[in-house]
Formats: sequence, C-alpha cells, structure tokens
Amino acid sequence: MIGIELEQAVELLSNKINLIEDYEEVELEQALGRNLVEDFYAPIYQPPFNRSPLDGIAVRAQDTVGANTDHPKTFKIIETVFAGMASQKRLGMGQAVRIMTGAPLPEGSDAVIRQEEVVFKGEEAMVQKSVSPYSNYCYKGEDIQKGQLLIEKCTTLTAIHLGVLASMGCNKVRVRRQLRVGLMSTGDELIKPGLPLEEGKIYNANTTLLAARLKELGMIPLIIEAQQDDPDHVARKIKEMIPQLDILLTTGGVSVGQKDIMHEVILKLQATRLFWKVNMQPGTPILAMELGEQLILSLSGNPFAALATFECIARPVLGKMSGQSYVYPVKAEGVLKGAFNKVSKKRRMIRGLYEEGDVTIPYEHASGVLSSMIGCNCLIDIEADTPNILEGTKVKVIKL
Amino acid sequence: MIGIELEQAVELLSNKINLIEDYEEVELEQALGRNLVEDFYAPIYQPPFNRSPLDGIAVRAQDTVGANTDHPKTFKIIETVFAGMASQKRLGMGQAVRIMTGAPLPEGSDAVIRQEEVVFKGEEAMVQKSVSPYSNYCYKGEDIQKGQLLIEKCTTLTAIHLGVLASMGCNKVRVRRQLRVGLMSTGDELIKPGLPLEEGKIYNANTTLLAARLKELGMIPLIIEAQQDDPDHVARKIKEMIPQLDILLTTGGVSVGQKDIMHEVILKLQATRLFWKVNMQPGTPILAMELGEQLILSLSGNPFAALATFECIARPVLGKMSGQSYVYPVKAEGVLKGAFNKVSKKRRMIRGLYEEGDVTIPYEHASGVLSSMIGCNCLIDIEADTPNILEGTKVKVIKL
Repeated sequence: MIGIELEQAVELLSNKINLIEDYEEVELEQALGRNLVEDFYAPIYQPPFNRSPLDGIAVRAQDTVGANTDHPKTFKIIETVFAGMASQKRLGMGQAVRIMTGAPLPEGSDAVIRQEEVVFKGEEAMVQKSVSPYSNYCYKGEDIQKGQLLIEKCTTLTAIHLGVLASMGCNKVRVRRQLRVGLMSTGDELIKPGLPLEEGKIYNANTTLLAARLKELGMIPLIIEAQQDDPDHVARKIKEMIPQLDILLTTGGVSVGQKDIMHEVILKLQATRLFWKVNMQPGTPILAMELGEQLILSLSGNPFAALATFECIARPVLGKMSGQSYVYPVKAEGVLKGAFNKVSKKRRMIRGLYEEGDVTIPYEHASGVLSSMIGCNCLIDIEADTPNILEGTKVKVIKL
Repeated sequence: MIGIELEQAVELLSNKINLIEDYEEVELEQALGRNLVEDFYAPIYQPPFNRSPLDGIAVRAQDTVGANTDHPKTFKIIETVFAGMASQKRLGMGQAVRIMTGAPLPEGSDAVIRQEEVVFKGEEAMVQKSVSPYSNYCYKGEDIQKGQLLIEKCTTLTAIHLGVLASMGCNKVRVRRQLRVGLMSTGDELIKPGLPLEEGKIYNANTTLLAARLKELGMIPLIIEAQQDDPDHVARKIKEMIPQLDILLTTGGVSVGQKDIMHEVILKLQATRLFWKVNMQPGTPILAMELGEQLILSLSGNPFAALATFECIARPVLGKMSGQSYVYPVKAEGVLKGAFNKVSKKRRMIRGLYEEGDVTIPYEHASGVLSSMIGCNCLIDIEADTPNILEGTKVKVIKL
C-alpha cells in the first residue's frame, strides 16, 4: 500500500473536525494562555475621567493669557486633589486646584501647569507664562473608548491581554474549553518508567513525551495506561475512554507485523479507516480512523517517529480544534550550514537547529532516535530523491 | 537626581543575588519547564540490548556466504521472537530465529535479513544472498551509552527532555525550586478588578499583568493585596511578607510627589537604597532597595512603565536567580519599516512588532499605555537624542 502525501493527510483530517465551541468562565488568574471565546469590548473609558498627567495646578487656560515673567498671574488655590480622590470643587475665574499625577481634573479646568513652572506662596500660585487650552490634559477615553473592540475572539490571552482586561475592571473572562487529548501507548515491550526493566523490554517514553508536548501546546493530556498487544483489550479500552476525549492519540501497532494490532482494532471498533501510511520518514505507518465523530490517530511506536508525525500531522488538527493559532506548526525557510550527504527515496524529516534563518544539523548523520532531538528546535523537510544538499542551500523547516 | 544607566542598574542588582540552590524532586509529569538541578547521566543503555530494526530472520552472517539465486542457503527456524520477549535460544550453525522489529537479537546471531528477502517454507527459511556481519543489527547502547552525560544541569526541561528521561526509566527528577516573587501594588486610586469603579479611581492592572508575566516565565507570583498610600502600613506589610519571598516587586509611589511613599518606606524598613531613577522612558523613577539580603524593586505605577522596567531590569535579575536562561531578555537587531518621527532627550523604550528581522511600530506615535502593547512583541530601544529614525535603519529591540 502506498501512502498519501502529508498535506493530503492533514487536509483530510482537518475536514473531519471543527473548532470546539464549549467555553467556561474563569478568573483572570486562570486565563493565561487560554483562548478568548468572544470579542471583548471595553466596558469603560480609559482613563475613566479627565486626568492630570503630572504634578501641578489645574487652571482655566484663558486666565493665563498675558502672563509673563514681568506680569505673572496669580491664582487662588481652592483645593488639592491627589490620585484616587474625587475633585469636589468647580473652578472659577482666577482659581486653581493643586493636582497630582493621575488625579481627576476639576470641573471648569482645561489645562495643567507643571509644578516646576509655578511659584507657590501660601494659598496662592503665580504663573509666569500663558498656556493653551488642553495643555497637559488627558481626556477621558483617550486610551480606550467605551464600547471599543479591544481583544478579538480566538485570541490566545497573554500577560498583556490580562493586564488590559484588569484595567477594564474585568476579573473573569470566557475562554474556550481546553482540548482533552487521550494518549495510549501499545506494545508488549513497554515498561512504565520507574519500574525495573525486564529482559527484552524498553521503557515507554511516548506517553511522557506526548503528554508534555500537549501541555506545552495548552491542552489537557488524559493518559491511558499502556496496553499490551491485545486487540480486544485495546478496542474495549478505547470504547471506554473515548466519550471523555476530544481526540485520541495512540502509539505502536501500526506497521505490518503480526503484533501490529491496530488494523484489527479498527475492525473491532467498527471504526472507519481514513488513511494508513503517509509519505514521510520517520513515521510512515501512521493510521487515522474515525469512530463516530471522533478521530483516532495511531502513530508509530518509535518515539522520534511519533514526535515527527505529531508535529506534522496532529498539530494542524489540534490547532483547528483548539482555536489556538500557535498550535499550528510554524513553517519557515532557512539556509543550511554544512552539507547533508544522505540521499533518501522518501520524503524525510530530520532534526535541526534553526537560528535566525540558519539551519544546522548537529551531526552529519541524523539518526532517528529521540535523544538526538535534544538541542534541536526544528524538523528539516527534505523531499524524496533529493540529492546531497550543499552548504548554503535553502531548506524548509517546521519549527517545534 | 540623575538616573543611572539601565545596564548599570542591571549589573548592580545582579551582583547582589545568586542562583537559587534549593531543589525538589518531582514526578516527570510535573517537571515540564522546570530547571534541572544536576547533570543527568544515562542510568541504562539505549537500546538496552542488541535488537532488530525490522521484521526478518536473525542469522550468523558467515552461514550466508555463497548464497545466491541459484544456490540459496536454507536455515532452520528454531524460535520466533517478538518485541518485548526475551530470546531463549542460542543460534547454532545453519539456524535462524524469526525476529520482529524491536525484539532482542538471539545470542550467536550477528545479522538480520529483512523478511521480504526471505522465502519461508514451514520451519525453513531460504536466503538468496549473503549478508555482512552486523547488517541490520542495532547495538546495545547504540543511541545512548550507560553513564553518558545526557542532559546538563540548569537545562529547562522540555517535552523532548522528559521523553528522553522516561526512555531511561526515570520517573522523578530533581528540579530547582521555582522563584517566589511577591507583587504589591500601592496607590489610593486603585480598585480591585471586579468591584465597582468609584469616582477618581482606576482599576489595578499591574498585579494581574505582572503575575501573568511571572507565570509565563515559570515563576510563582505571590500576590499581596494592593495597599493604600500609607508608608507605615506598606512597610509593615513588606516586613510581614518578605520572609516567604525570593524577591519583591512593588508598583507605584516612586516619583517625587507627596504620595510617593516608597522613599519613606525605605526609611521605615531601614532598608538600603541601591538606586533611584534609571535613564529610560517610561519607568524612569524605578527604585531598588535591599532589605537584609533581599531585593525589593519598586516600579512605576503606570502599567506600561511597570512592564518596560520589568522587562529591561527585573528579568535579568530573575534570570540569574532562577537559572532559567530564557528568563533573560532576548536582544536582537531589526530593520525599521516606516519612519519614527519623535525625538526624545531620554533613552526610550517604545513598543514594536519584530518579525523575521523587520520591526514595525503599529502607529506613528507610540503612546505609553498598556493597551497599545496588544499585538506587539518587543520594545525598541531608542538612544537619547536620537534624531528622527528613517525607514530601513537598524534598531535594537528587546523581545518580550
């Protein structure tokens, strides 16, 4: 059986799923990284009142006309207003209010004179130059107009968004429910980390790897214990768990051997196979099925292969379901530093390090083992039958 | 009083603090993003045994010498080994073991022949070409040698690190204690988000903003309720809270007005002032003090100013204390798209958008309000007295 192209696989899966519409209302403290579910319109003006941007006196600009060093104008200070206070008085002709940064401007005033430019004498303030109306005057709503669209729906909330929401008096926000992604490893050879390693067995790395990757992408991994290569048992476990999940990822059992049980699991589940095998290495034998309206993606059991197909195939799907734009894999182009001398008949994803447009492959022969990904931050997408790649060639990368 | 340079401020503070040495042992599931406290050496080989990379038969390479289409060599299959099983038999001359991907190679074998190249007849396997010793043979320890340094201390653990640790059988890891950063806003004008806005008051955005920023940087914000402008009370609250904290950040009360209480708080705490005012805008009146061996950084009450000084001055300090290299601000250079026509006597940090080496300023006149940071991802560092900046000029940025 010949595999389909990576891009076809992604398109086929993406057409099967939709953006999650469920939302929950959470405290701002819990909203970091979450996906805003509705447009946020400013409920108040910012600043909420006309205010002074500095320490000085609030006056009527017209009363300063003609003031100069020889003929200063004298104002009577009728009140002092600090930030946080409400101004009680209305300013009349020749009157001033001593005002501090952030304090509301008194009614009747239309300008502020910086305190360094004022000579204070008891209850009086002397001004030696005229000011224009609305000098040093911060308007109510200057920064944000009430009713203005401030944050669009589907935005991933950062610290800055949360700060802005808090400045609007908001302490709760409606965010999209996080995706619940089931994870199940299969394989008779798997031992749970922390237990003694038996002969012929290996530790299960996939669950930890993918659970952490899902957390990095803002999702909730629901870990199902690793399963033996028993198709009946695996099918039962999937049926039991799937109602709690938005999507299920499994690893192992997808190749062509006798223990590649997932082909039988599909039959037992009466699920529909969407595709098996994608033209990429590692991870070729990825298997996708649909059970009711839910997707199950069964990745290769090799951790590096599982990771590569997760990045290339699962992420676009999870991106669409979660509404989080950053979940989609980020593609870029870079210039290869050093040559790459391995020809492959298949399209290959090899590990690399992308830095400011330069791409390096840490060792000449990229191996497919997970540990070789330490220190790497991208996959280099090398087309089938590409001859040796020379230093300085442009290559396509998928950033992790 | 004239401020010190930003770089001096950072150096002065960095000399006062050290990397946190406390650590805790956590489950791998809890270790994402945490800082590894000791070098991790591989406790086992990977793979843990010699294994087959594919489905086929394990043989002695010498027994295949001379095999060709006309004169196939016949092997007797003495056992079948799947992944997860231990091989029980020792291979003798002319014998083969049917072996699956990932299964341990039987003693005596030194090569694997792919099943597609073998003709099976009952208990016999016919081989039509010779193979070299160690063909399709994955050595024990090929990927990872026992005792090898796998992950260096002070590494921030990613999904890939956790996957590798799991593959080594590790289920717990020693990570550095997360920094506990106190946050206290001061100001009579502050109202807690969610409560009704009173006349002359504004909502407290700084606590939410900085708490979320600290979380983004992997730290634990400890929020102290906002305080009125009462130096006695603020000093008492600081004394009460500081034993639980690694560092305290406050906002507000650092300028020159009557309500700029932090100058008095220093005296009441008998703390040592390290500096007051840094040559940058916004955020100039940042005040740093030392109380015993702990630092208190008092930032401007304006949210954008608080953010700018947090990014430029607090982050390098938090980076050194936490051991997390990504906490340090990342500096870069970019090419300005569009001109910037505002001359300033002071060094200024203005908001910008950095994308692949290009820097744009969303509106011509960058204002200092927090909401203007939405959609931005960097601060552009503009030196004092810089004339108008032309399109295409290289500018320095600090990425958020």
